[in-house]
Amino acid sequence: MPPIITAFASSPDRGRGLARDMRVRWALEEVGQPYEVRLLSFREMKEAPHLARHPFGQIPTYEDGDLVLFESGAIVLHIAERHAGLLPAGQTARARAIAWMFAALGTVEPPILDLSTARLLERDKPWAEARLPILMDRIRVRLGELSKALGGRDWLVDGFSAADLLMVHALRRLEGSGLLDEYPNLSAYVARGQARPAYKRAFDAQLAVFTDGAGAD
Amino acid sequence: MPPIITAFASSPDRGRGLARDMRVRWALEEVGQPYEVRLLSFREMKEAPHLARHPFGQIPTYEDGDLVLFESGAIVLHIAERHAGLLPAGQTARARAIAWMFAALGTVEPPILDLSTARLLERDKPWAEARLPILMDRIRVRLGELSKALGGRDWLVDGFSAADLLMVHALRRLEGSGLLDEYPNLSAYVARGQARPAYKRAFDAQLAVFTDGAGAD
Repeated sequence: MPPIITAFASSPDRGRGLARDMRVRWALEEVGQPYEVRLLSFREMKEAPHLARHPFGQIPTYEDGDLVLFESGAIVLHIAERHAGLLPAGQTARARAIAWMFAALGTVEPPILDLSTARLLERDKPWAEARLPILMDRIRVRLGELSKALGGRDWLVDGFSAADLLMVHALRRLEGSGLLDEYPNLSAYVARGQARPAYKRAFDAQLAVFTDGAGAD
Repeated sequence: MPPIITAFASSPDRGRGLARDMRVRWALEEVGQPYEVRLLSFREMKEAPHLARHPFGQIPTYEDGDLVLFESGAIVLHIAERHAGLLPAGQTARARAIAWMFAALGTVEPPILDLSTARLLERDKPWAEARLPILMDRIRVRLGELSKALGGRDWLVDGFSAADLLMVHALRRLEGSGLLDEYPNLSAYVARGQARPAYKRAFDAQLAVFTDGAGAD
């Protein structure tokens, strides 16, 4: 039995690949592990069967026999620990790559998500417009530091790793904001990630859910 | 040579133990690993020697021989992988505990940090007061889900683990907000974490930096 992941039946991003199942799909494609997908409506995500998989009623989850995991970072790390290709071989480089995984999710992504939240959930508030430049400046601080850290290298730690997978996906949420264009090495980095065959296969798979209209909520 | 961690010379929380070096100190105390501390001023955190350790110019970092790590979650996981006592022995429970580590940092902590950010960085904005109830309700959503997931158990996965360490520390930032009091099992959970001898040793060590006035910035 291949592992089963969960994804939105009807993704709010209309197939742009910004939902977090994309991270798990990409990781599984990188290591060549086939998988199955259980699509969930927004209602089903908050019902008991899925809450037993995911305490916060979100996607993705990952089921492999008795093991049920949630949190895209944890799932990607689990896949990376069990297959070659997503973490460096040396112990020091491996630990560094895991540090960058946590940095992608805990340091770089939060201000990016704050911008999405402000645009989505606070767009009709009187402060909506005035807060945006503040939020964008917070993102610039992180992008500037990340840009310096990456420098002229292709990937964060040695070759492509799970750290790049999570970081590229987090940065993709800035598409259309113009912010990424201010850091040419980061734009190139994201493009480099998106050019990987495994990324493309994962992207096409999640897009097919939308274009096939398989699960209108 | 024991590992060396970094911490604020002059913590903004005045020794309340909310800074993230507390997580690493606590983990090291749980496993009985002695460590040394390098205290940094705010200026030093953004200078080249520390940026070489931490690309985002923050604390804590962790140095052990050739290995230099950043991100408290990654450091705690690294310690947990190398010592007994912070992750369950079984592979399934171990993976679940790591998922909860990611959940603490990626799902529960962000709305809590948003409240701190609003209070600290946007307190003089015209929207400061009106936004607070919105932010508090976002935290309540997560606390409600976490409260249900924990139920009547003492810890998130089997015995005490690195997941509880990170979760308890993230929740502690709500002290004084009254939010935690709305979920008695979560209040008891945080108190249970704080009652651990290793927690107390770590807390006293970080408090001593403040009370000794070792590093006024």
